[in-house]
Amino acid sequence: MAYPRALNRLVEVLCRFPGIGPKTAQRLSFFLLDCSREEVVAIARAMVEAKDKLDYCQICGSLAESGFCSYCSDGGRDRSLLCVIQEPRDVLVIERTGQYRGLYHVLHGVLSPLDGIGPEELRFEQLERRIADNHINEVIIATNPNVEGDATAGYLARMLKPQGVRVTRIAFGLPVGGDLEYADDLTLSRALDGRRDM
Amino acid sequence: MAYPRALNRLVEVLCRFPGIGPKTAQRLSFFLLDCSREEVVAIARAMVEAKDKLDYCQICGSLAESGFCSYCSDGGRDRSLLCVIQEPRDVLVIERTGQYRGLYHVLHGVLSPLDGIGPEELRFEQLERRIADNHINEVIIATNPNVEGDATAGYLARMLKPQGVRVTRIAFGLPVGGDLEYADDLTLSRALDGRRDM
Repeated sequence: MAYPRALNRLVEVLCRFPGIGPKTAQRLSFFLLDCSREEVVAIARAMVEAKDKLDYCQICGSLAESGFCSYCSDGGRDRSLLCVIQEPRDVLVIERTGQYRGLYHVLHGVLSPLDGIGPEELRFEQLERRIADNHINEVIIATNPNVEGDATAGYLARMLKPQGVRVTRIAFGLPVGGDLEYADDLTLSRALDGRRDM
Repeated sequence: MAYPRALNRLVEVLCRFPGIGPKTAQRLSFFLLDCSREEVVAIARAMVEAKDKLDYCQICGSLAESGFCSYCSDGGRDRSLLCVIQEPRDVLVIERTGQYRGLYHVLHGVLSPLDGIGPEELRFEQLERRIADNHINEVIIATNPNVEGDATAGYLARMLKPQGVRVTRIAFGLPVGGDLEYADDLTLSRALDGRRDM
């Protein structure tokens, strides 16, 4: 590359972002060079500040600005209901439904033996302890509907049921507003499996 | 958004990048929060350092780390030949051919009356002065092959020819390795216009 060193360095670090290759990194770099110094500093500062201010909730593992997240600190939530999710960002997805009033438990991943991720790498032990120490009626497992997500759900069900808690899995089936014609086979067979009496 | 403030702020600043919407900004934000503090600081620092260290060459307007770019400072280049390009990044594109040994002149844009970009907003005057003050045989115009790029090339040709310099435009035609069947009409008609004796 015949680019100045500082530019090469910038392209290189921007390439670390997921989904950003050398071409996009180069485009973003030139955008930054066209910004005023104040704007570049504002972006850089927002990155470091977010990292400094945000941490994971000591109870549920979702994002928190001060030790405990807004859900675990909220007295109005149903404390007997836990929703187990893969990533902190999934909290917002569930919250958007406006339907869930329980608490969360973020695993920070799913079981993936090929990547060396076993039960010890995830927040399984904290979940067991939470259920042992608190009065929890039901654990809803909302890991993603794929091989790893399903395997993790199955593992958790076997692990938690002996504790006497009800373990459920969110339903899979046809998306609302979708068309039968365009549904893939797997979704359709799950929709058939999960059929309900009317 | 039920996200902590520092995260909202980060998503917001990352959305300023071209081609990055709220969804991608959120994904990048969560990636940053998963990084170590050192990594985040390294990325932030590379951005500010690039902005601080890099500037545009005082002669040709391409990227430079110290007043003059590596091409303008290179005694081995052909100083009688100028290649006019739109953006600093285009320098590398031309350099990659390994065929060009002249100098560059970066316009930092093209004429675009609808966006309020006229000759005063681009580095036209500097180009005129460069040609007047130096012994330049030929100016190759390599703006993009689209309406604005062609209009800018035409404007420059009319402006520079009275100075007695040869003004050329890079050739447009079928891409090497391409297939006639898949060429669009405009490219094909340009390839016919630009035909050469064999």
